[in-house]
Amino acid sequence: MERMGTTEFDIYLEDLGRRAQAAKAVLQSLDTAQKSHALKQAAEALKKEQGKLLSANEKDCARAKENGMAQGLLDRLTLTPQRIESMAEGLIQIAGLPDPVGEVMEQFDRPNGLHIEKVRVPMGVIGIIYEARPNVTADAFGLCFKTGNAVILKGGKDAFYSNHAITEVIQEALSQEGVDQNAILLIENNDRAVTTAFMKLKDYVDVLIPRGGAGLIRSVVENSTIPVIETGTGNCHIYIDEAADPEKAVPIVINAKTQRIGVCNACESLLVHRKIADRILPALGKALLEKEVEIRGDETVRAQIPQAHAVTEEDYGREYLDLILSVKTVDSLEEAVAHINKYNTGHSDAILTEDKDRAQKFLREVDAACVYVNASTRFTDGFEFGFGAEIGISTQKLHARGPMGLNELTSYKYQITGDGQIRP
Amino acid sequence: MERMGTTEFDIYLEDLGRRAQAAKAVLQSLDTAQKSHALKQAAEALKKEQGKLLSANEKDCARAKENGMAQGLLDRLTLTPQRIESMAEGLIQIAGLPDPVGEVMEQFDRPNGLHIEKVRVPMGVIGIIYEARPNVTADAFGLCFKTGNAVILKGGKDAFYSNHAITEVIQEALSQEGVDQNAILLIENNDRAVTTAFMKLKDYVDVLIPRGGAGLIRSVVENSTIPVIETGTGNCHIYIDEAADPEKAVPIVINAKTQRIGVCNACESLLVHRKIADRILPALGKALLEKEVEIRGDETVRAQIPQAHAVTEEDYGREYLDLILSVKTVDSLEEAVAHINKYNTGHSDAILTEDKDRAQKFLREVDAACVYVNASTRFTDGFEFGFGAEIGISTQKLHARGPMGLNELTSYKYQITGDGQIRP
Repeated sequence: MERMGTTEFDIYLEDLGRRAQAAKAVLQSLDTAQKSHALKQAAEALKKEQGKLLSANEKDCARAKENGMAQGLLDRLTLTPQRIESMAEGLIQIAGLPDPVGEVMEQFDRPNGLHIEKVRVPMGVIGIIYEARPNVTADAFGLCFKTGNAVILKGGKDAFYSNHAITEVIQEALSQEGVDQNAILLIENNDRAVTTAFMKLKDYVDVLIPRGGAGLIRSVVENSTIPVIETGTGNCHIYIDEAADPEKAVPIVINAKTQRIGVCNACESLLVHRKIADRILPALGKALLEKEVEIRGDETVRAQIPQAHAVTEEDYGREYLDLILSVKTVDSLEEAVAHINKYNTGHSDAILTEDKDRAQKFLREVDAACVYVNASTRFTDGFEFGFGAEIGISTQKLHARGPMGLNELTSYKYQITGDGQIRP
Repeated sequence: MERMGTTEFDIYLEDLGRRAQAAKAVLQSLDTAQKSHALKQAAEALKKEQGKLLSANEKDCARAKENGMAQGLLDRLTLTPQRIESMAEGLIQIAGLPDPVGEVMEQFDRPNGLHIEKVRVPMGVIGIIYEARPNVTADAFGLCFKTGNAVILKGGKDAFYSNHAITEVIQEALSQEGVDQNAILLIENNDRAVTTAFMKLKDYVDVLIPRGGAGLIRSVVENSTIPVIETGTGNCHIYIDEAADPEKAVPIVINAKTQRIGVCNACESLLVHRKIADRILPALGKALLEKEVEIRGDETVRAQIPQAHAVTEEDYGREYLDLILSVKTVDSLEEAVAHINKYNTGHSDAILTEDKDRAQKFLREVDAACVYVNASTRFTDGFEFGFGAEIGISTQKLHARGPMGLNELTSYKYQITGDGQIRP
């Protein structure tokens, strides 16, 4: 690609914006059956064009290896026949979910005779900025398309060829269905300035959803003039109350910390009531160390778990996404709540206790999207919640909070019917 | 006030932020009766301290007159005993409305035994930036307080003394009730840089709502890192379809254009189907001219209404907030919808027609918060919708759209109860 000047960037993006806006009008007129059929055709096309997708992905992977990409990232970038199959399956599953668009959420009559209906409608055009994970390309398209939204995607530059191929295959399938192929658009310029300019494409994009690490999210929040839904930064806590059942506590902490470490709903910080510390920490320490978790604890913790390292204040604010856990002793439920509300990212926090009143107080006072009693924070997930899909986990309070399924990709409008009413 | 450097601004704002955060925790623990009682006491205090409020307001008004403030703005700035009374009445009415906080919006059980409740909760801390209308100070406080939110207010500098007095009276009343007076905080520095820095107080403010003209809204959208709800810009259309009833059309247009001109739900642009132009325009033109409305129309319009001026493309995009109306002839319903979707601000648009199918098509295809059939756009209002309150009219699609009442000042959290569940 040629490097474009700002004006060229704007022309390029505005062209995409206009095409998405035109597609939006078409998408809003499709019924559920038409959308489902198109999604299934797109799934078929991905399977049929496996060879094309694999060879595009090979180019990305080869370049990534040359550039010394870390193993974890390279794994996320890599497509295999199985992964393409499951990408296609994902679209078929989305096709089978209930269509939220058109639902009459509320209706009421006013004394003056006006009839008001609150009707669920697509957002319009959704922008998604994400990292080098090609499966997100198909997945995000599927969720947006099902909800009648056009989508403009900006994927990580390391997945350039893969994203291009996936988008092209889906666009082709849509065309053959007679659906405007601009329902999915990919920004194919990797200049950072294009991404920043995209965040200001307010006249054409109704909502922007960043999916990725804390740095990406921060950049979007700081630069975007489009309304943003922040997703996925999770400094998740588990608080083991004095009234906790140690039998439940150890497996829950091990699950939340180690079942999958690079995810936003993994536990990063543990609080232990001082009164239960000597009963819980030795067994818990042993179990964590067996899983090769590095423990960073305060004095009380280190007295019970000699292998633990010293914790710093800075640790409490970190989302490790790694086999590391900060552990702090607290003197009260109140101290635990205050600590969590100071350091959490509004994602998921849990209390382990057999005391119902203390559980209620924690549920009420901890300020997070998902607050748990006696369960692993790993359940914060659209599928685990039964939504059948997930576009991300919102950590903000506006619009959607917690796991976002199809409903969260919609807005509403008021449709008001009268017979000549004027305002007195 | 002394002019502060950036660091001083930050210290000043962070102090306010911390106080609001502390108050937020207190507010979330208040029950409905406690909140209602405190609101009534605040209302009583405003009435009792009428003299103090009036003399503070006199200072503002005197300065405004010196500075040559326009009559309309000066009127909005001025407090009278009646206006203070109705400000207090507003708080009493809010006290009487149902409390949305704590409502279980949904609940469901998962196959693994997890019980999930979606519970309505306060946003936390709400920031409101508005112009020189002192009544907004009390009104915004009342709505935020009722919904368990702390509020940080930045009012127009011309209402400095009035806002200070109102805030002080309310804070005093809260203190006497034993409620943290930081539930209402006022930014009392009028340096523009403080307002801009306030828009970036993301660590302390959960949502920012600008109330005012298009310039203010734009500045907030461009500068804020806090999630914003855009309100109140209304380029509202009425489309008179070929199947319209002229008997209904004239009163609706007159009402929407002239019942109150400076408001966001007033009609700014009229579209008329060519086939009905000669039957509707002469009578409509006469009625508009009687109300001293300047008509700016295309050739067809000017042929029917000789007093009309020529319309320009630029007119179609303008929110006049004045006795001016742009009028355009269209050849079809489709042309009307396309024109509206190009020029509207997503606020309120109406079709006048006796044809149900054409009405449905318009309701479905026009992209706006409120879409009307055979009624005045002036009904887009929280009170007219029966919400009992209104913080503003949202013109965005994220979170809230259209009139925002108490529910729209809340978020939700998921409360998940288990008995030891871990993720397989």
